[in-house]
Amino acid sequence: MRILSGTRSTGLLHLGHLINLENWKNLQDKGNECYYFVADWHALTSHIDQTKNYRKWTIEIIKSYLAVGLNPEQSCLFVQSAIKEHAELTLLFSMLSPVPRLERVPTYKDQKENIKDKDLSSAGFLIYPVLMSADILMYKPGGVPVGEDQIYHVELAREIARKFNNTFSQVFPEPEPLLSRMPKLPGTDGRKMSKSYDNFILIDTNEKELWKSLAPMKTDPARKRRTDAGDPEKCPVWDYHKAFTNDQEELDWVINGCKTAEIGCIDCKKCLFKNLKDRLEPIWEKIHYYDKHESELMDIIYSGNKRAKDFASKTMDEVRDAISIRW
Amino acid sequence: MRILSGTRSTGLLHLGHLINLENWKNLQDKGNECYYFVADWHALTSHIDQTKNYRKWTIEIIKSYLAVGLNPEQSCLFVQSAIKEHAELTLLFSMLSPVPRLERVPTYKDQKENIKDKDLSSAGFLIYPVLMSADILMYKPGGVPVGEDQIYHVELAREIARKFNNTFSQVFPEPEPLLSRMPKLPGTDGRKMSKSYDNFILIDTNEKELWKSLAPMKTDPARKRRTDAGDPEKCPVWDYHKAFTNDQEELDWVINGCKTAEIGCIDCKKCLFKNLKDRLEPIWEKIHYYDKHESELMDIIYSGNKRAKDFASKTMDEVRDAISIRW
Repeated sequence: MRILSGTRSTGLLHLGHLINLENWKNLQDKGNECYYFVADWHALTSHIDQTKNYRKWTIEIIKSYLAVGLNPEQSCLFVQSAIKEHAELTLLFSMLSPVPRLERVPTYKDQKENIKDKDLSSAGFLIYPVLMSADILMYKPGGVPVGEDQIYHVELAREIARKFNNTFSQVFPEPEPLLSRMPKLPGTDGRKMSKSYDNFILIDTNEKELWKSLAPMKTDPARKRRTDAGDPEKCPVWDYHKAFTNDQEELDWVINGCKTAEIGCIDCKKCLFKNLKDRLEPIWEKIHYYDKHESELMDIIYSGNKRAKDFASKTMDEVRDAISIRW
Repeated sequence: MRILSGTRSTGLLHLGHLINLENWKNLQDKGNECYYFVADWHALTSHIDQTKNYRKWTIEIIKSYLAVGLNPEQSCLFVQSAIKEHAELTLLFSMLSPVPRLERVPTYKDQKENIKDKDLSSAGFLIYPVLMSADILMYKPGGVPVGEDQIYHVELAREIARKFNNTFSQVFPEPEPLLSRMPKLPGTDGRKMSKSYDNFILIDTNEKELWKSLAPMKTDPARKRRTDAGDPEKCPVWDYHKAFTNDQEELDWVINGCKTAEIGCIDCKKCLFKNLKDRLEPIWEKIHYYDKHESELMDIIYSGNKRAKDFASKTMDEVRDAISIRW
């Protein structure tokens, strides 16, 4: 199956993204034809004042893609804004997208209501899901790996595909959302992971910094003393164990030790630290490799862009023929 | 000065357009550097069910441009959808355009309220003035010839230029609207000229058809009999005289003859017919020339597209550098 997914270039990637990227790698390793991109035009909807950082972030994000094990020989890794065809398809799709439909997109409504420190009044923010539909449909994927909050966007892409096919002619297959059972990682303080709370752990960190982030992590507030029993379900450290501790014995040790106060929070965090370090060390190594081999990294990006562009050009030829706007 | 203007590819051009094109020709003949295009992407906002005709209409429109005397050696004649850069700039400008601002554009409000036989709910229709701003600013014109109803669009383009320059860096000069004192031509039945009323006269017509359109034209309804005096201000034929009769003596003859019933409506129409025929004959000749020399016509279009594309590429290089999104 062809797979398409992306990340916005609004900063460096953290452990929440890591789970996502590992899912992408699994899809790649199962033999799917994967297209993974960095959405820098999308970043404009919320981070228009930080465009000076986009290029750096984009490069670091693709470095993380590679470090996690995405193989550029198999998966096409590319940058959205390098493929101008996405803008043309967005414009064409905007003609098929009713404004009231876009106003009903849950993430739009939700962010308009809840995010007060950013100006989300732009037309660009309103048509964001149309741009996302263009990103997706351009590569005619069979599946789009998404978190639960993104299902609606794939649904909109399916609607636009249907509308395009009905209005003009059959060009776009309807992609399926691939809902991955991904644990939602909270911030290190137990709140929602967010840049403004500074409660996240970057993928590109090191042993010392990693411990500095884990050691002060909030735990079950009821467990005030070492001898108090804890409830793992109320502890963000346990969420991290569920995401990063694979060994069932260790998980049992954590859960029982906490509930019976046989282990302290520091014991528990040390176990998490060990597992996270094991998971991250090969990733760090690869990141350092690409830090030292930047031209190799850039070649990977440019050849990914070229491969994506070739695909997009073909799709746009079909699109222009279907609409009969071809010059 | 650099000049930019365009026409939508929603049908063949009529006498209302002719006045407009003659104004464009004057601007060209004064030595301005002119860019005149056919807006086929714009046509999608209102004529998405007629895309099969766009190419034919676009070619006929450019034929009319040439026939009226636009010289492709001086004026760049091109097709909007051939210059994909317009779509990219539209996407970028959409990030700087607040939705409430677009909802207040008078033509948007007006058409949403008054046009009931078309679906104008699309995001494409909402961002239409953003696309128009991209069309304009791409070529950094000093002036944009417009009718009164379009002034607001140039104003929006100026706002977007200012916002872009302030947010990123100085790329776009603010264009001035060039309001031409163009008589507003009514339909042959005195109502608003409109395709649905079938009350317009195409530029590409012939002597016989021209008279067939003029002869039954509505005149001052008070002038029921040949002996009744008329009021030219209540007569659409007089509007046509004002637009197409240049000779002051003839104009005086029409106005006095009508007011005193010295001439009949047919006399008046015959005078208009003669003047219109004189005006149109050289245009028909050139249209027929290009009918017979299609490859020459297509070469003109393709080289206009190339010239526009070269300009647009340079602008987009500056734009991408200013935003720091360049891949």
